[in-house]
Amino acid sequence: MKLATYKDGSRDGQLVVVSRDLSSAHYATGIANKLQQVLDDWRFMAPQLQDLSDQLNGGKARHAFPFEPASCMAPLPRAYQWASGGAFPSHAERLRQAMPFAKAPPEGKSAGPLMRQGAGDSFIGPCDAVLVGGEAAGGIDFEAQLAAIVGDVPMGASPEEALDAVRLLMLASEVSLRGLPPDPAVDAACGATRAEAGLATAFSPVAVTPDEVGDAWRQGRLGLTLQTTWRGRKVGLCDSGADMGFHFGQLIAHLCRRRSLGAGSIVGTGAVSNRDWAQGYHCIAEKRAMEIIDGSKAATPFMQPGDTLRIEAKAKNGQSVFGAIDQAIQAAP
Amino acid sequence: MKLATYKDGSRDGQLVVVSRDLSSAHYATGIANKLQQVLDDWRFMAPQLQDLSDQLNGGKARHAFPFEPASCMAPLPRAYQWASGGAFPSHAERLRQAMPFAKAPPEGKSAGPLMRQGAGDSFIGPCDAVLVGGEAAGGIDFEAQLAAIVGDVPMGASPEEALDAVRLLMLASEVSLRGLPPDPAVDAACGATRAEAGLATAFSPVAVTPDEVGDAWRQGRLGLTLQTTWRGRKVGLCDSGADMGFHFGQLIAHLCRRRSLGAGSIVGTGAVSNRDWAQGYHCIAEKRAMEIIDGSKAATPFMQPGDTLRIEAKAKNGQSVFGAIDQAIQAAP
Repeated sequence: MKLATYKDGSRDGQLVVVSRDLSSAHYATGIANKLQQVLDDWRFMAPQLQDLSDQLNGGKARHAFPFEPASCMAPLPRAYQWASGGAFPSHAERLRQAMPFAKAPPEGKSAGPLMRQGAGDSFIGPCDAVLVGGEAAGGIDFEAQLAAIVGDVPMGASPEEALDAVRLLMLASEVSLRGLPPDPAVDAACGATRAEAGLATAFSPVAVTPDEVGDAWRQGRLGLTLQTTWRGRKVGLCDSGADMGFHFGQLIAHLCRRRSLGAGSIVGTGAVSNRDWAQGYHCIAEKRAMEIIDGSKAATPFMQPGDTLRIEAKAKNGQSVFGAIDQAIQAAP
Repeated sequence: MKLATYKDGSRDGQLVVVSRDLSSAHYATGIANKLQQVLDDWRFMAPQLQDLSDQLNGGKARHAFPFEPASCMAPLPRAYQWASGGAFPSHAERLRQAMPFAKAPPEGKSAGPLMRQGAGDSFIGPCDAVLVGGEAAGGIDFEAQLAAIVGDVPMGASPEEALDAVRLLMLASEVSLRGLPPDPAVDAACGATRAEAGLATAFSPVAVTPDEVGDAWRQGRLGLTLQTTWRGRKVGLCDSGADMGFHFGQLIAHLCRRRSLGAGSIVGTGAVSNRDWAQGYHCIAEKRAMEIIDGSKAATPFMQPGDTLRIEAKAKNGQSVFGAIDQAIQAAP
């Protein structure tokens, strides 16, 4: 099934079930109002939502209405944990290669993906503007990512057990500042973004259960065609599963090696990347790293107010799986 | 008023109002079940809880019962944001001084406190055990901290405006691993703890509104006597406000320079520290740094299963303000 959250003026919005082709939707009222409720009690509530989804896809849902991505909040508008990063080794390798200072501590990293935790208190909707203050106008970057919402995962779960806890899949766009002093290379070296660097995190209009993507969901990797369009220009187009070094089960197991993970935690991959340079990029810092590695200067500028960013994943049949993240960078008033 | 959350088998527990002397409590049922509800709608709900608090303190609450810290979850058992660190400069300075590798990027840091984001999906109760796997038995450290729960804070709020958003104050104990490869110094240098390093975060049994601490709450600093007891030995005893370089308004304003902060976000100070060595320590890594700076080797060992840790803050009259965090480190089964 496919789920979304409609804006209604409240902090957590109203849960809706969306048809497979993203054309229509139906309020889940009567089953649950908020997605976190469902995640807290998945075994009881998911089958009821699945029934509604079946009715909707069969054209039998009584109060269906046309689905509008612009009316959406993030599927989970607030989350108790948002951790991301490290799933695509070619991303981190390029950044390290381009920043000599960051080369120091690369050993031991094979121990696992380098993940960072972010704020979950106010994700923005898929079509909401990213507001930036004038002071933040340097070094605005994006990372187009895949993300999973999980159920409860016990401490010490294996990657396979962790995969069983994946409830929903979606796309993410994390916009943050790269240009913070003292040295962005230090942050890159330890896989951390300082707490004040994050500007806004958005997710696709729709979150889907793994069964909705069929064969494209393979051993924790999502083999869809991911397309990132910046300022109206396609800058990245690749198979999102091809070069995913750590799959979702490994990312989740890494986070819960020493503690449990609570239902509704969101785990992101970090910027999607592909070893083949011809397939473009899903993060400006990575493009700039490619330019440096290539022997020239970093020429691609970071984002500016007025820029647009669109991220979408398509199945083999050309259908959009999650709907598109379609956002504009705007100067804060 | 003083608020706590009682265990009831659910993820968010039951909100209770606690008397000023921590002797009795009363369920807030009828007003709100969960603290997050109150934080989402503070102006409407806080006055009702204040009335109940007044009744309880006046001995007129009908269904009061003896307050038991061991029955408590964290006051806010799950939070949409948990960011901490950087409020006590002597802590970071000692760590940097003791780790030559970490000295590289100290400039520009004066721009603000170095804060990191952590997981908010499953805080433990004040008297719950910290479970550690065998594999994690090296480098277990604690940080005794002060923390504030905030209301909504708009992007760009000044430190003074940010202070107005402080709803509740409490103590925090963040237990994490220091011994992770590749080099803990890198993490110290950029103020980040990797996502997998966190073991468990606990808060004091009770969270209190700033008016409850009277004169001890001064311009965003909390001047109480903070005592940390490890293995039954007092290791730190200091005025928790004396050397707080960045006050709570500055910490919060730093986090919301470029984004808003949602109601229920928790902001922690990082390890409390005092420039006077004689006043001890509230974090083992800092004690080890002192030993190195003093010209010898780091001799104080990290924590081991079986260790106990108690953190409590007292007012001038000797009264415990928040109740005590009283935890044991236990090997996971």
